[in-house]
Amino acid sequence: MIIKHPSSAKGKKIVVVVGAGFAGLKAAQELAHLNEVQVVVVDQRNHHLFQPLLYQGATAGLNPSDIAVPIRSQFSDSANIEVHLGKISYVDLAAKVVVADGGIELSYDYIILACGARHSYFAHPEWEVFAPGLKTIEQATEIRRRILLAFENAENEFVESEKKALLTFVIVGGGPTGVEMAGAISDISQTVLSHDFKRIDTKSAQVVLVEAGARILGSFDGSLSAQAALDLKKMGVDVRVGTRVVNIDDQGVQLSGGGYIPAKTVVWAAGVQATPLEFKSPIIRDNSGRIKVNSDFSIPQHPEAFVVGDMASFQLTEKQILPGLAPAAIQAGRHAALMIKATLHGQPRVDFKYNDKGQMATIGKTKAIAQVGNIRLTGFIAWLSWLFIHILYLVGFKNKFAVFLQWIWSYLFAKRGSRLITDKEWRL
Amino acid sequence: MIIKHPSSAKGKKIVVVVGAGFAGLKAAQELAHLNEVQVVVVDQRNHHLFQPLLYQGATAGLNPSDIAVPIRSQFSDSANIEVHLGKISYVDLAAKVVVADGGIELSYDYIILACGARHSYFAHPEWEVFAPGLKTIEQATEIRRRILLAFENAENEFVESEKKALLTFVIVGGGPTGVEMAGAISDISQTVLSHDFKRIDTKSAQVVLVEAGARILGSFDGSLSAQAALDLKKMGVDVRVGTRVVNIDDQGVQLSGGGYIPAKTVVWAAGVQATPLEFKSPIIRDNSGRIKVNSDFSIPQHPEAFVVGDMASFQLTEKQILPGLAPAAIQAGRHAALMIKATLHGQPRVDFKYNDKGQMATIGKTKAIAQVGNIRLTGFIAWLSWLFIHILYLVGFKNKFAVFLQWIWSYLFAKRGSRLITDKEWRL
Repeated sequence: MIIKHPSSAKGKKIVVVVGAGFAGLKAAQELAHLNEVQVVVVDQRNHHLFQPLLYQGATAGLNPSDIAVPIRSQFSDSANIEVHLGKISYVDLAAKVVVADGGIELSYDYIILACGARHSYFAHPEWEVFAPGLKTIEQATEIRRRILLAFENAENEFVESEKKALLTFVIVGGGPTGVEMAGAISDISQTVLSHDFKRIDTKSAQVVLVEAGARILGSFDGSLSAQAALDLKKMGVDVRVGTRVVNIDDQGVQLSGGGYIPAKTVVWAAGVQATPLEFKSPIIRDNSGRIKVNSDFSIPQHPEAFVVGDMASFQLTEKQILPGLAPAAIQAGRHAALMIKATLHGQPRVDFKYNDKGQMATIGKTKAIAQVGNIRLTGFIAWLSWLFIHILYLVGFKNKFAVFLQWIWSYLFAKRGSRLITDKEWRL
Repeated sequence: MIIKHPSSAKGKKIVVVVGAGFAGLKAAQELAHLNEVQVVVVDQRNHHLFQPLLYQGATAGLNPSDIAVPIRSQFSDSANIEVHLGKISYVDLAAKVVVADGGIELSYDYIILACGARHSYFAHPEWEVFAPGLKTIEQATEIRRRILLAFENAENEFVESEKKALLTFVIVGGGPTGVEMAGAISDISQTVLSHDFKRIDTKSAQVVLVEAGARILGSFDGSLSAQAALDLKKMGVDVRVGTRVVNIDDQGVQLSGGGYIPAKTVVWAAGVQATPLEFKSPIIRDNSGRIKVNSDFSIPQHPEAFVVGDMASFQLTEKQILPGLAPAAIQAGRHAALMIKATLHGQPRVDFKYNDKGQMATIGKTKAIAQVGNIRLTGFIAWLSWLFIHILYLVGFKNKFAVFLQWIWSYLFAKRGSRLITDKEWRL
């Protein structure tokens, strides 16, 4: 049966927001304290994740809770916003109903879909167990477990070839995440861990970054990705561009061109695809599963339904779509919310104007590259601005302060705060 | 084949320490920089866990890494100590060999066994899935997951009886851990969570503490456990003494005397037993599986083998054995190490003298009870001294500072730092 939200009886419009990532969270925040609407935020997790710092969680630099906050805690003071933990099984645009697991049907007046993206293994889902991606806290913890365990096992290994495979880390994909993972793994093996192992030399660990394209960080200016590649090489990272992965198993990675890397630890940072969500109505998707939206993020023929964030395919120019960056997602979520406001207030909708905040990526502990408009930054300056901006982003989240201290700790004392190997299974 | 440690060729004595809890860690530290010995620390986890604060991890007060430190990082500067991640499958006292998983046999000159304890379900192992114990980080994370998930599911629940079962938390066992868990769960439902839920009143959550004995905190002075019971009742905790659990399933807890509590979340804090470890030689165990030791913690007929910590049954008086407290374990580990030193230096061994540091337990956020010799403390004073002592204990661990701040944060701002629900499985 369809559940009419009690608030609708009071003449309130029901706005359902699915997903509390950057886009969804911002959309809901924008609608807080707007009396005409009751906002129902649905997410399958209880926490909002600060994804740009997830690689720090995967390399023992930050605690899971340093980069994630309970969604509820963000709306404690918003009487018209409620949060529900749950998974949406499908959306019926025609009937204006979302169906959550458990078969509960919630009818809405407006809906904002912001379910984000997940990794795509290019039709090789079987690779995932050997090469986990980095999108969730669980995945970060698992990657952390694998990296630390590799060093532990190497310390106990007598067979040289096995030891080498244990000390070889392959990162697939030379985008920001891949570059940051490669840099961070290289860092810990060169600094933090090097004092703690007596039998192996952690500095001998090999980090290989495999990129299918002609250069790493392809979305950046050529000069910057060249600098990044140089910085990585200086750190000892083996950067291989123009190289595709043709197979991954528990022994290593088979590369295009016949190369093979024996490696026990592989991290996937390559393709992404929109989180699959079932619709009971026809919608248009691009080849990455993103949903094509109008210039106001509404779904064609459905002015009451919006798609924002990594799930949306928003045509920026002829050949360019809105990039999958946090600032873009935040702006998109905000715009969708404002369009709902406008409609409720009888005002016309306006097209979304993207304010390009630029992009940046860290390379190891003290270097980064940044690109904002015509400004190009590299090295320590870029890293400082990267740090500054990320701390800024965390403002408003309770753990801003803790994170900041953790950082100072990590960077000044080269300690890795959360070097825990925790089992997947709780029972031991 | 038996592996002779390379150091033994250099005339060094090999000391194997199994387990890096309070007892094992202290024993190894005591032997650091002692040139005649090479110490091999073996643990099945990579971290030393500060168990007295584990309940904080289970109730989202502290991060796992706030209460655990990598074992290696404790011995970075000790050239004669190496750490190995691994599980011991058995000990052969006659051959002076330990066999680790993978069949590697390591011969030793001296061995210190400190594998600790685990929960005992009184011949009802099937209860564990419904009522996890609190001994490991994984268990703490799982209990945290269950507690937070119970509130989330209650928020989505329409059936009143189900909602009540979701908001009922049963703690089995009225020892310090049980009391601290009951207090902490009551706390978060009364304070932190109460603002975040819109449909349920988290303050209506029921916490039931079930104790089979005549009073809670039986190891404390009667007046103190009476005070603790009073404090708990003031907090709304339903304390039921003289009550045994006769069955636990996914619906609730069946009590002796016919009582039944519908509850979705049950935590086990009752019996403990020594971690089972196989011996290829005859040894004497008490009825909790602890190994009977001499007055110097050595195993009868085996002056080169010691058992310390929760794994040892050390006769303190006619009817009293050394209690399972951190200070006792630390003193025992230290004594065993000193006896090895003495023997190596041709000095006689001495009997262990227990320095009773007393015991304490917190009741909720600002109260505690403490008992040191004839001194009896209750209320806030007791809590302050409890806090002070626990911070002191953490001295030397890198996260002392972070923990301290986290605490101030939690206690002053009533926030719960790590309110994350993370899945057991990493893949989603």
